[in-house]
Amino acid sequence: MPELISETKIDDLSAVCRQMAQSAKVASRKLAILDTAIKNRWLLASADRLVAKTEDIIAANSRDLDAAPGFGLTDAAIDRLRLDAERIAAIAQGMREVAALPDPVGEVIDGFTRPGGLQILKKRVPLGVVFFIYESRPNVTADAAAICVKSGNAVILRGGKEAIHSSRKIIDLLAEVGRECGLPTGAVQLVGTTDRQAVGQFLKMNESIDVTIPRGGESLIRRVAAEATMPVIKHFDGNCHVYVDETADLEMAIKIIVNAKCQRMGVCNACESLLVHSVVAATFLPRIAAALKAESIEMRADEHALSLFDGGVPATEADFRTEFLGPIISIAVVDSLEAACEHINRFGSHHSDAIVTSDLRAAESFTQLVDSSAVMVNASTRFNDGGVFGLGAEIGISTDKFHARGPCGLKELTTYKYIVRGDGHIRE
Amino acid sequence: MPELISETKIDDLSAVCRQMAQSAKVASRKLAILDTAIKNRWLLASADRLVAKTEDIIAANSRDLDAAPGFGLTDAAIDRLRLDAERIAAIAQGMREVAALPDPVGEVIDGFTRPGGLQILKKRVPLGVVFFIYESRPNVTADAAAICVKSGNAVILRGGKEAIHSSRKIIDLLAEVGRECGLPTGAVQLVGTTDRQAVGQFLKMNESIDVTIPRGGESLIRRVAAEATMPVIKHFDGNCHVYVDETADLEMAIKIIVNAKCQRMGVCNACESLLVHSVVAATFLPRIAAALKAESIEMRADEHALSLFDGGVPATEADFRTEFLGPIISIAVVDSLEAACEHINRFGSHHSDAIVTSDLRAAESFTQLVDSSAVMVNASTRFNDGGVFGLGAEIGISTDKFHARGPCGLKELTTYKYIVRGDGHIRE
Repeated sequence: MPELISETKIDDLSAVCRQMAQSAKVASRKLAILDTAIKNRWLLASADRLVAKTEDIIAANSRDLDAAPGFGLTDAAIDRLRLDAERIAAIAQGMREVAALPDPVGEVIDGFTRPGGLQILKKRVPLGVVFFIYESRPNVTADAAAICVKSGNAVILRGGKEAIHSSRKIIDLLAEVGRECGLPTGAVQLVGTTDRQAVGQFLKMNESIDVTIPRGGESLIRRVAAEATMPVIKHFDGNCHVYVDETADLEMAIKIIVNAKCQRMGVCNACESLLVHSVVAATFLPRIAAALKAESIEMRADEHALSLFDGGVPATEADFRTEFLGPIISIAVVDSLEAACEHINRFGSHHSDAIVTSDLRAAESFTQLVDSSAVMVNASTRFNDGGVFGLGAEIGISTDKFHARGPCGLKELTTYKYIVRGDGHIRE
Repeated sequence: MPELISETKIDDLSAVCRQMAQSAKVASRKLAILDTAIKNRWLLASADRLVAKTEDIIAANSRDLDAAPGFGLTDAAIDRLRLDAERIAAIAQGMREVAALPDPVGEVIDGFTRPGGLQILKKRVPLGVVFFIYESRPNVTADAAAICVKSGNAVILRGGKEAIHSSRKIIDLLAEVGRECGLPTGAVQLVGTTDRQAVGQFLKMNESIDVTIPRGGESLIRRVAAEATMPVIKHFDGNCHVYVDETADLEMAIKIIVNAKCQRMGVCNACESLLVHSVVAATFLPRIAAALKAESIEMRADEHALSLFDGGVPATEADFRTEFLGPIISIAVVDSLEAACEHINRFGSHHSDAIVTSDLRAAESFTQLVDSSAVMVNASTRFNDGGVFGLGAEIGISTDKFHARGPCGLKELTTYKYIVRGDGHIRE
């Protein structure tokens, strides 16, 4: 067993968690007013340190890789876990990019002088303490630390056990640089135990933790949402649609669907369902079916669609609700744009949905009627991404409507306060 | 018993609630894209109708007033319940003011064209369905309906049982006007039963209700927050402070404290605690004590403060945590601005806190260090209010940091979506 786990286990878990949360809270008060220059200095120096310590990180990572088969990781998961010089350089580059983003803290969102002369400013401030639960990808450890600190928040990181040595090494380096740069102690902490009960402890602490962000499987997110006593930004999966309207450029539609479905299948903004207007279904379905067949995609279609192309299998209602995250797509024929929007709002997950159309009014109706974080016109669903949107780094894609929707970058980790200036003003 | 209660009770409560929520959800999809002109026409015509039907409303109200002693209402509560022609005119005027506010729906919050030509808009959209639980004030019924509909949301109103006849009459009139103006059925609904279990039913329905806003006592809010499966905007009480800095204009300080404490005692932005810098404590405390004594305010003070003025009683730690909502104030002497801020962040409720100072740097530090929804400099805490801030009508003052902080007006009942326009764009 890795020593850091046994070390922690000798202590009382609840006391350790409480102490971490307290330390984060104290740090958050200092971080909230920390000069942007100090935050950026830490980001840039951390990037350099990670590169300088490439060998040490690779050594820590090799311990995770050695343990990986014991955790039953797939080859793909082991590949995501693996760090080499190039990947460490990419992590460092990510931190430099966060340094280059504008500091959201202190931004004046609104401001006015009221009759009588009272001056009111609405100013952006950090949320406070973020509890971030994520999968076994060591690069996420550095990304999340960077985003949280740049937005003035303290963060408690709870990464997957499969990456614990890599994450620990990265956080030790970031903390070392933090001490040199004047980052408050407790700004970035990694939960040193992989005990699942630790999560439950933190979820009780709404006095010290301001928001929890769970990333990973649906059952984890449901558990966190049910147990948490503080707000949660949820990252459920994406059951994303492409709808081919009657006026669609069919060549464009094929290109977009193949991209949205096949460019990367295991991600939340990949297309899982295809809807085709009945007017073009007979022409279009055989063509898209051939293109998807060439990519070895299984096609599960409703009765109408099945009658129009070869090689499909019947779809159940469950298929239309499913995020396959793999080489399967569901297909239905719809009789109108409204029916397509209804299908998407009913079966979809309000994540990313696209229309392919040449008709201006159809584009406008679709973007109005579909209730999703991102609605695309003649573009792949794969574009719903903080980097693509120009938000810079992202800590996830929210499937909530409340507080943050879609890609969560720096601003989504902030709130605001009103500052009211008078000169002895009293209320009559 | 009023007939509407017995009517509902013969049905299965859960089925009735589910049907209301479903109806609200359907209405919300239509409201989200409803023309501003129709929403405003409904607001203005409703205002006229309320005035035209003043006698009917007063008749319904008199049934509530007759029942009030049976509910054990205080005289003050009965007064708040009472409607007369003037108060009905004020309710109507409130609806006209909401009509005059800009429509938040469709506002472009941000927008950019990305390298490659992808065009991205971040557009404001309604949250969907609001479940609003509030105290026994019939004017709130009309206010809440107006704010929710103007922001494109459907609303399920659950008012106090003490005002049920007045609220029912108002909602019936608003619904009648809604049918005439083209408002979707189900846009504004009042829970027809005062059965407390109805609240529990709605709190389970996160598929159809997007946000719950409870207003009222702390125990209600805690219950709702614990039971709700959807986001909650909480309106906890305000334990608000005025801190008198060493450089304060002491005349101004007296004026502000008396206003913040005494102008209206039963409200969340009233002052409950006074902190005085030790350098001015000996001079200031006797003067403010005399002013507060003249207003019959009981002064509960720490040991240091007690030694400096007459007429105080010892304060416990609990007093510093208490929102008195009445003629009591807690008083402490602090040795520095930092100590004042620490006291406020520790004992306060992050609502509204003020500094009285002549020192620019002290003002800046205080507004940075105090973690409250509104931080005042040389102004009364009583100014934390949507109307004062120019937000127009408000549905409450959020004590949360997440999504909405401070006064909640139209914008706080919205979220956003990204609209992405390409021309066959795919991700490489």
